[in-house]
Amino acid sequence: MTTNRQIVISSIPEGQLEDSHFRLTESAVPEIADGQILITTRLLSIDAANRAWMQGSTYRSVLSDGLVMAGLAISEVIASRASGFAPGDIVFADSGWQDYAAIDAAVAQLVEPVEPMSHLLSLYGTSALTAYFGLTDVASLQAGETLVVSAAGGSVGTVAGQIGKILGARVIGIAGGAEKCNWLVDHLGFDAVIDYKAGPVSAGLKQHAPGGIDVYFDNVAGDTLDRCLFSMNTGGRIACCGAVASYDGPKPTHGPRGVPGLLITKRLTMRGFIVTDYESQYGAALSQLQNWAARGLLRPVEDIIEGLENAPRALIGQLAGQNIGKRMVRVST
Amino acid sequence: MTTNRQIVISSIPEGQLEDSHFRLTESAVPEIADGQILITTRLLSIDAANRAWMQGSTYRSVLSDGLVMAGLAISEVIASRASGFAPGDIVFADSGWQDYAAIDAAVAQLVEPVEPMSHLLSLYGTSALTAYFGLTDVASLQAGETLVVSAAGGSVGTVAGQIGKILGARVIGIAGGAEKCNWLVDHLGFDAVIDYKAGPVSAGLKQHAPGGIDVYFDNVAGDTLDRCLFSMNTGGRIACCGAVASYDGPKPTHGPRGVPGLLITKRLTMRGFIVTDYESQYGAALSQLQNWAARGLLRPVEDIIEGLENAPRALIGQLAGQNIGKRMVRVST
Repeated sequence: MTTNRQIVISSIPEGQLEDSHFRLTESAVPEIADGQILITTRLLSIDAANRAWMQGSTYRSVLSDGLVMAGLAISEVIASRASGFAPGDIVFADSGWQDYAAIDAAVAQLVEPVEPMSHLLSLYGTSALTAYFGLTDVASLQAGETLVVSAAGGSVGTVAGQIGKILGARVIGIAGGAEKCNWLVDHLGFDAVIDYKAGPVSAGLKQHAPGGIDVYFDNVAGDTLDRCLFSMNTGGRIACCGAVASYDGPKPTHGPRGVPGLLITKRLTMRGFIVTDYESQYGAALSQLQNWAARGLLRPVEDIIEGLENAPRALIGQLAGQNIGKRMVRVST
Repeated sequence: MTTNRQIVISSIPEGQLEDSHFRLTESAVPEIADGQILITTRLLSIDAANRAWMQGSTYRSVLSDGLVMAGLAISEVIASRASGFAPGDIVFADSGWQDYAAIDAAVAQLVEPVEPMSHLLSLYGTSALTAYFGLTDVASLQAGETLVVSAAGGSVGTVAGQIGKILGARVIGIAGGAEKCNWLVDHLGFDAVIDYKAGPVSAGLKQHAPGGIDVYFDNVAGDTLDRCLFSMNTGGRIACCGAVASYDGPKPTHGPRGVPGLLITKRLTMRGFIVTDYESQYGAALSQLQNWAARGLLRPVEDIIEGLENAPRALIGQLAGQNIGKRMVRVST
């Protein structure tokens, strides 16, 4: 434990994210001040949101050239000058893409260890909580309704699809590539998954959701949102969770054509949300997720890449839709 | 009572609505069948929705060439072959732009007469109910919040602005023309009204809503919605009530740029609604409106045009923003 490898933003991308936007540097392992903890990163969470943070001011302050790339991680405390934290504790924090970090204890969240630790990011992480609150609260999904989930093979989508089935909905996914689509039907119980690379989404919706969509869980925005709006049933709800289609490239010049006309004629609700707004309800949600997992209704879908140095490629690949389930980077064991 | 003047759609407009899209015809006063009532039109309600009905299938079946123009009206029953309806009764129905109509009693709504009868369309009509439910239910406006109302001088806007003040909000209108804007501030108590014809709406919002918008009551869509989206506060709500900007011309090719990106980062809710969804709650709402009116907090704003033959011009003028308040056409007294 002498050097701290860090992945630094060499330049903010104008268009598509590439390896060259990052560089690996080495520095000394930081010292901690009073109220801080020193942590060693175990697992980095790779999220589409990482890319959004590079675009401009969102709910998180903007990233810029020369900063360590931001990212959520599960880490182990190795030294502490903060009460309530001791070496060996497991914490969750936005501690960035690096081997070690000295962070204020106030921004670290103590978590109960589970085995394997990766479940903290898959089954019990923010992706799963996002799917849970998006369906139960934002969209109020009811049994018997038809749910459409875009980026169905992603970290949020794989959980949203499973929760949709648990709640008694008919679940139609939208994902890219025949292999991924078939896997979601065969292994996660989606009723159907539309391969957007194989043909127009509208045709797929006509075939698999002939009665229309009651809830659309939107992870991608762009054309897919446009198409789904036209298939919504009266009184339908759209949970606006992500806009992957617009993260990795130039900013969109316009929004969906159905807004607000179709919102009015079909009495639709579109609601954006960020999972951290539900922080006070995480406990109850995690109990529910654990209960479903214990009963075999909800399974973790994980996609683990080895090595901090591979984090940029892990994110670039995720933005291209290479992952199935929750992608993470194992930094140390 | 021998002839029935009717305003018929001569052709569905492709672009802007003009006089030539209508023609006045005369036919015999219709006979009524069992279960029907014969009514004489007193006051036609002129609504932006009239124009929307000419555009394609909405919540109402589409209008086409040769049909009597559809429109809501307050009428008096002059003959009845339906139980529960007697000559002299006042009814509200989509009975069209004509002197007389034979309609199924099932689609006529008996209303308690008030004096003057025009209050049935202004203070206690669908425009007022639309404003009421849009603010109290769809947008959940709270005291102390900043409300922005577009088409502030219109039938819904003039009521929404007044209800906003009654509920304790800071109320900023958006309307066209200095005279109208000043009138709304001087006579209805708007805190400020932005004249979109005098300069960019964004500058007006910066000046009059420097703390951002909590609730946007959207009657117009288009660029105004686009601008307001960028000024919304976190957790803000947008009640999607109308899209006047797109009714009278070609269909929009795209939607607002802030959807869904800003919905997510600012946790906004956009919800479309149609007042008739609240039919079961009309009684309670009307009591509240009457109470406010009796206490002098809510005043009717009426714009009455005389003569059935002037209905087309009344609608065309309303679409151009000529009216202040609830526009109606007096067909008979």
